[in-house]
Amino acid sequence: MTTLVLVSHPHLADSTSQQFLKASINSDEVLWEHIESQATIDIEKEQAQLRQADRIILQFPLYWYAAPAGLKQWEDTVLTRTFVYGDHRYPLAGKELGIVVTTGMPAKAFQRGGAEQITLDAALAPLAAVANRAKMKWLPTFAIHQFAYLDEPAKLQLVVDYQRYLTQTQPDNLQNKQAWFAQHLPAMIERLPLEQQQAGQLILTAFEQQQTDLEALTDTLGLIKEQEDD
Amino acid sequence: MTTLVLVSHPHLADSTSQQFLKASINSDEVLWEHIESQATIDIEKEQAQLRQADRIILQFPLYWYAAPAGLKQWEDTVLTRTFVYGDHRYPLAGKELGIVVTTGMPAKAFQRGGAEQITLDAALAPLAAVANRAKMKWLPTFAIHQFAYLDEPAKLQLVVDYQRYLTQTQPDNLQNKQAWFAQHLPAMIERLPLEQQQAGQLILTAFEQQQTDLEALTDTLGLIKEQEDD
Repeated sequence: MTTLVLVSHPHLADSTSQQFLKASINSDEVLWEHIESQATIDIEKEQAQLRQADRIILQFPLYWYAAPAGLKQWEDTVLTRTFVYGDHRYPLAGKELGIVVTTGMPAKAFQRGGAEQITLDAALAPLAAVANRAKMKWLPTFAIHQFAYLDEPAKLQLVVDYQRYLTQTQPDNLQNKQAWFAQHLPAMIERLPLEQQQAGQLILTAFEQQQTDLEALTDTLGLIKEQEDD
Repeated sequence: MTTLVLVSHPHLADSTSQQFLKASINSDEVLWEHIESQATIDIEKEQAQLRQADRIILQFPLYWYAAPAGLKQWEDTVLTRTFVYGDHRYPLAGKELGIVVTTGMPAKAFQRGGAEQITLDAALAPLAAVANRAKMKWLPTFAIHQFAYLDEPAKLQLVVDYQRYLTQTQPDNLQNKQAWFAQHLPAMIERLPLEQQQAGQLILTAFEQQQTDLEALTDTLGLIKEQEDD
């Protein structure tokens, strides 16, 4: 699978969350691009990248309940009517569109009665309408609230969740999650510092054992259900 | 009342609808500004203008279910956190925010089951959330659908409706509408070509007569209601 990550941020170097996310990417399957770093937007190149990707991620901080101006400029420029739905070709049809959004407020602020008085879904509705127009598949939003306040365990969890969001098969169910870890755990352990390699190997063995146990459990459950259906 | 019209359009000179709207403005109460015409946004000047206005109008074509990138850039730059709600001063509190939006689709496209699959209200929700955060009063949206297909009578109607949207006291009820026409009709008739002046005077007389009739009717209705309440 090819994933294209389009990052919009007017001051990327100053953003600790964006730098953290960028450092978390560790896959040949992921193409990363910073929209504002381009003096002018190369429409042909951008459209070619979009055509090639299976999953397109728009990643940005929430500024006034929307993406920064840079992403809107990209939309207004690259997503020409002809490209998106002209001539009924729909080159983006079937591709997945994911949103990675960072906010300075806690999650609870984005609900009825919350400080922001708007849900993330409502704030992202214009982008969802674009996805709909292009016949793309909208993925559940990946929101990171108040990154600066995350402790180390939460940040480690974020790395893994983010990597999965970029490359794991959707939907995010147990089966797809397991398949993803089975594929990525060995390489993740190899990248550990030498003194943690042994602990990593233990985790891998435990994971593999659990996988076998889960398969056996699933089989048993399947048999019970079959008997219930009789 | 002071109205500030902030127009966002990347190619204003090419837009017949924007040129039409600009020509429709005929009032000293209205300050008109084209956002993209400024090489750099003068934050101090923009904030001062906002402070002075009673009604702020954001006017733009709907691009991908939102304002053009230029308006988002203006938001991201001018609407600093400190300006909007920092120190709990809220300099925009109580001001009216109106949206004049042009679209290339018919009104019926913006509903459940419509071609766009999103309502204008939903598309403008991020802007409404900004208004809410700034403690501004959100006015009913002024939407102009498929301007290019409007015939002459519809365009004349649009001129009047637009002028009222910019300067008439809200809400848009009979009383406020009457007061607005009483104030503006004489000047509107004066601007008519000479051969239409007489027809204009007749309209003015008819309007004044209707106003008297309406007042009498309202009084009668009030009396009937009073008796009903007994």
